[in-house]
Amino acid sequence: MAITRAECQALDARDPLRDVRDEFALPPGIVYLLGNSLGALPRRTPERVARTVETEWGVHMGASWNTAGWWDLPESTGDRIAPLIGAGPGQVLAGDSTSVNIFKAVTGALPLRPGRRVVVSDLDNFPTDRYVVQGAVAALGSYEIRDIGSGAGLAGLEDALGDDVALVLLSQVDYRTGALRDMAAVTRQVHEAGAIMIWDLCHSAGAVPVEVGEADLAVGCTYKYLNGGPGAPAYIYVAPRHQEAVRNVISGWHGHAAPFAFEPDYRPATGVRRFATGSPPVLSYAALNASLDIWERVDLREVRAKSQAMTSLFIELVDDAGTDLVLATPRDPERRGSQVSYRHPDGYPVVRALADRGVVGDFREPDVMRFGFAPLYLRYVDAYDAATALAEVLREDLWRDERYARRLTVT
Amino acid sequence: MAITRAECQALDARDPLRDVRDEFALPPGIVYLLGNSLGALPRRTPERVARTVETEWGVHMGASWNTAGWWDLPESTGDRIAPLIGAGPGQVLAGDSTSVNIFKAVTGALPLRPGRRVVVSDLDNFPTDRYVVQGAVAALGSYEIRDIGSGAGLAGLEDALGDDVALVLLSQVDYRTGALRDMAAVTRQVHEAGAIMIWDLCHSAGAVPVEVGEADLAVGCTYKYLNGGPGAPAYIYVAPRHQEAVRNVISGWHGHAAPFAFEPDYRPATGVRRFATGSPPVLSYAALNASLDIWERVDLREVRAKSQAMTSLFIELVDDAGTDLVLATPRDPERRGSQVSYRHPDGYPVVRALADRGVVGDFREPDVMRFGFAPLYLRYVDAYDAATALAEVLREDLWRDERYARRLTVT
Repeated sequence: MAITRAECQALDARDPLRDVRDEFALPPGIVYLLGNSLGALPRRTPERVARTVETEWGVHMGASWNTAGWWDLPESTGDRIAPLIGAGPGQVLAGDSTSVNIFKAVTGALPLRPGRRVVVSDLDNFPTDRYVVQGAVAALGSYEIRDIGSGAGLAGLEDALGDDVALVLLSQVDYRTGALRDMAAVTRQVHEAGAIMIWDLCHSAGAVPVEVGEADLAVGCTYKYLNGGPGAPAYIYVAPRHQEAVRNVISGWHGHAAPFAFEPDYRPATGVRRFATGSPPVLSYAALNASLDIWERVDLREVRAKSQAMTSLFIELVDDAGTDLVLATPRDPERRGSQVSYRHPDGYPVVRALADRGVVGDFREPDVMRFGFAPLYLRYVDAYDAATALAEVLREDLWRDERYARRLTVT
Repeated sequence: MAITRAECQALDARDPLRDVRDEFALPPGIVYLLGNSLGALPRRTPERVARTVETEWGVHMGASWNTAGWWDLPESTGDRIAPLIGAGPGQVLAGDSTSVNIFKAVTGALPLRPGRRVVVSDLDNFPTDRYVVQGAVAALGSYEIRDIGSGAGLAGLEDALGDDVALVLLSQVDYRTGALRDMAAVTRQVHEAGAIMIWDLCHSAGAVPVEVGEADLAVGCTYKYLNGGPGAPAYIYVAPRHQEAVRNVISGWHGHAAPFAFEPDYRPATGVRRFATGSPPVLSYAALNASLDIWERVDLREVRAKSQAMTSLFIELVDDAGTDLVLATPRDPERRGSQVSYRHPDGYPVVRALADRGVVGDFREPDVMRFGFAPLYLRYVDAYDAATALAEVLREDLWRDERYARRLTVT
């Protein structure tokens, strides 16, 4: 191979983020390339969650809504996510799931473009983005969806745009291929057509330095690169210029202007708080906030540089191994997020065989193997070991063992 | 007073639920009468949450979606809530907040009654029920809301019903007064008018033995009497006869028939699973499930008997003290849930003064002091001590101290 394991260890020794790995509790003997799906556990998260459970809930009980800041968690947590997506204070609200936030964003933004009845979606969008748009459009009536074809890129978007388009919903990073869109260019293109741009940042926040820029709204999750824990609160970004015009269709009491006045009628809070709905799952916010403590201390440019170097290294090593894999991720590091994907007709058993050898990736239909490189806790030597194991599984046909064929519920 | 503290201690010694109190971690010196708002911490919850964080997430990581049953949490947890509301397996799904579930229930059920354009709500409903209906109706268009006046009861409902009514949304227990509605009678009345009945069980599940019976849909929370923790997952009940007809408007991938096929179009799962939307907040489910372990072992008839006896005792003791409080809760124990409320023009500082003396209740605008009696962990002697403290705060005008006037964010 073009680079030796010892050389990878030397890269790790020079890595400016090398100490950040110590902030994570990683099981021994595992190369965890699934941080693009569920991030690793930060070492201080258990203590933070335990404090919330045992002290805030167990000792101070209901008073913690005030004294522990529970009531403000959607805003205070949102303000800590904001720098990771290029947003400012009062622009991001943490809560609900990504899917629920997509629903809020789409149904809230459509009335901003009265008379326009088309929502542009993308066959490459993560399915829930598509499903939620379909449900919203069916419920609202009189809207239609226009799909950009798979892999059509900017030209496909141009074809879909027109003066009937109310909004466009796209992912910054393609969940299958890891391809990275130019947010600023796409947002400009959509705005030139007079439409609203909503971004899904699930696969980009924490993987690349995101700049929401001129985007109108954005949503994302915190359990992937942000390491907030399984099902951690998602978030919604609403540009300040829209905050008083966009209504939250799921208008629950946590988004009311005076929630404890118990007024008979809904009256939205000012600012991003109006996008809150019901009681926040406090324990899940505690875990997320423990992770955000780490993010406050890292330089996103260093994260990006390491991500690009690690993914390039992995691609080179797999190239050198001479497998029959087809790279699904752009070779240009400027055009990808922090994952590397390969197509292989037997990708599923290959991923299972790899996991049995301690290299954890995942599989997405129909034929995509995904390997996520979370720069906060992965080392160059992990990329080396993963590429070596992948080459071996393919070279030795280890994936043909029949126990790897059986599908698990969650693939 | 009509009964002595020693007599209350004797009642506690005979209480068939007396050992259940040991399952809770209660701070010393506090009489916690806020279990109707945030239930106490079960003693085994910290360990259960820690296991989910440190082992399921920290060690097994993404594999836990399969191996720890994370993917199935909405259904498996729902099946454990079901017996508490008189429902069967496959009828309850745990997830999201109550407000989001109200939105799903209302928007999903309205198409069951095509041509009928009225939603009946109640000025006594908890505000979020009203707010969410208002948001849903505004988004869907062409529906209107008809309000039942405050305190109007069954006659008010009869006046509101008509052949234009599509659905009725009511709470079984009034959040201010604790008044208990006859679910079976109201459901029958609504069905006779041809409308859909949706119940909000937030203030009743765990407080009284609920029987969903012929109800069409129901929603509820788990952080009050069910002790699931702050912002614990809420739930939705959908009667089996409606499960294939009601669609989930917030149609996310967790409710898809084949979520890992990543199909381009939404196709709802069969059964109650279709009401799932996005990734479940796993840590919050862990806490809830620790509490449901306790609920599996208690007899709901004993819970109800103790609730009625404790609330009756409290009312008698406050009666005997000769205060100027006005009882807002029905005197007939068959007609109330598990809380006792009093009206007092200075209810807010009275509640604050009581809290300073270790008796924790809360206040609801405009003048209601609420005292929740959670039968799993409260004792008769707690009711005695609370009534004694309340009488003293009023008799000695202790609430007039100016530091009690200042409103906290969360009241």
